[in-house]
Amino acid sequence: MNEIIIVGSMALDSVKTPFGEVDRVVGGAATYAAVAASLLAPPQVVGVVGNDFPPETLEMLQERGADTSGVEIVADGKSFFWQGVYDYALSERDTLVTELNVFGDFNPTLPESYVGSRYCFLANIQPQVQLAVLDQLNNTCFTMCDTMNYWIENERAALEEVLSRVDLALLNDAETRQLAGMTNLARAAAYVLDMGPDFVVIKKGEYGATLVSDAEYFSIPSYPLPDVVDPTGAGDSFAGGMIGLLAHQDECSTRQLRRAMAFGTVIASAAIEDFSLAGLERLDTSELRRRYDALREIVRFDAMEWEQI
Amino acid sequence: MNEIIIVGSMALDSVKTPFGEVDRVVGGAATYAAVAASLLAPPQVVGVVGNDFPPETLEMLQERGADTSGVEIVADGKSFFWQGVYDYALSERDTLVTELNVFGDFNPTLPESYVGSRYCFLANIQPQVQLAVLDQLNNTCFTMCDTMNYWIENERAALEEVLSRVDLALLNDAETRQLAGMTNLARAAAYVLDMGPDFVVIKKGEYGATLVSDAEYFSIPSYPLPDVVDPTGAGDSFAGGMIGLLAHQDECSTRQLRRAMAFGTVIASAAIEDFSLAGLERLDTSELRRRYDALREIVRFDAMEWEQI
Repeated sequence: MNEIIIVGSMALDSVKTPFGEVDRVVGGAATYAAVAASLLAPPQVVGVVGNDFPPETLEMLQERGADTSGVEIVADGKSFFWQGVYDYALSERDTLVTELNVFGDFNPTLPESYVGSRYCFLANIQPQVQLAVLDQLNNTCFTMCDTMNYWIENERAALEEVLSRVDLALLNDAETRQLAGMTNLARAAAYVLDMGPDFVVIKKGEYGATLVSDAEYFSIPSYPLPDVVDPTGAGDSFAGGMIGLLAHQDECSTRQLRRAMAFGTVIASAAIEDFSLAGLERLDTSELRRRYDALREIVRFDAMEWEQI
Repeated sequence: MNEIIIVGSMALDSVKTPFGEVDRVVGGAATYAAVAASLLAPPQVVGVVGNDFPPETLEMLQERGADTSGVEIVADGKSFFWQGVYDYALSERDTLVTELNVFGDFNPTLPESYVGSRYCFLANIQPQVQLAVLDQLNNTCFTMCDTMNYWIENERAALEEVLSRVDLALLNDAETRQLAGMTNLARAAAYVLDMGPDFVVIKKGEYGATLVSDAEYFSIPSYPLPDVVDPTGAGDSFAGGMIGLLAHQDECSTRQLRRAMAFGTVIASAAIEDFSLAGLERLDTSELRRRYDALREIVRFDAMEWEQI
């Protein structure tokens, strides 16, 4: 099993959905991705938290095999805080509060033990920070980055530099269209590929995700759930599951990328069944296997004997 | 090959999309579905048109093996007319004009040669008309119905009667949620199944479609296209392709239903590459086969050797 470096926010979230409400629970892209990845391979986590971040969360990560020596704890600071509310269908959310706090000065120096990591997920952070992390890594074989509309609008040049250096860009459908400046998703994905990455993964929320490269096109639906409680962290859990499977297999073929997306899908399905990290923490290997196999059955349809038609 | 009865609108459409504009071209749910189905099995078409409907379209249908003796031509009337405009992303449309014309009094008496049809697609029409057609059929083995928000709101009792009598309900995601009065799609589908049909197919536009029964769950993405010109008729082409494949195979197993959804997906992809029926008419057997096989590759991901994880 190969090591993974995961860089991004570690946060406290207050979230309201039609199914409940939680106050200052643990969240953050790197946190979700690290818990997700740890099901498959040990992540090295890079982030910054304040004195209000529960030490139990770092202990839980360590118990799952994660290295948290790259998580800076600022004793006189507060953690990144996000407050949001979801609509009735859980398909849209409004941000009510964003307090960057210690995350506003995030510019990590990697521990020496991290710089040789082979697999890397750069969660949604300022592209300049993503570049600074890439500059410190000396042995990567596969790098993925996420981003958001704010960086597409305000830090385009730095984001383009990131995209020219990563192997895979992870975007939602709106970000893909915005980045490419075109509405047709197949064309927009081709435009993003021209910016540098070998692969684009387009996240479509409840509608699943699509992998595109010059030679590949793969679509996977979401895992059906009767009870979705809180979609927060779904995309980061998906990404963590992807990079976890690639590191576990230590292979970045399209065969493994397709499997990685299925693992990401299954792990994200567990994440959204509860608030904060509770759903992810409950997911065990037997349920992971069961949902993976179920997902294969969900997409299966048989070949035709073409002489008939 | 078994015969199919297709009942629904035959219309003239004026459509504007970001990629062009057409005036009073042939449209209508039954027309799209019949052309689609005719790639696989001969449809018997039931509809009503006015003196402005091009006779060439009926001739084209006959050349493709369709029986149009159930299409009433009202010499002193005008055809159903619809005018609509699509947004920049082709995901929403506004109806500008709807003139029912001869379709307003549509209450067909089936030709004697139709009543023994084994496969039936009741396109989106008043549920009372769908019921009147079902009353006339005496040998069906598989019936599908479509509907729309207007009937869900205004003719709920009749629609419930239809749903209690068909084998498969074809709905888009918004209709499924509206009919069930709940937002979670997995739960909403289960609610619709309780109303009677053995299967629900939820159409999700560019995101594909999902088949649900008590024992089955199958999801298929849309076929990726770099050039979508006009989405009008996509759902009806999908339905026509589905019922066509079932009739061709003369079997309504879930194995064939999954294949039917793949055929529907491929045929719908051809329909939206051009205005009116042009894309469907261009689709030949070799392209149909090529896209079906490509779609299997698009959804493929390999099993895991679980002892590893």
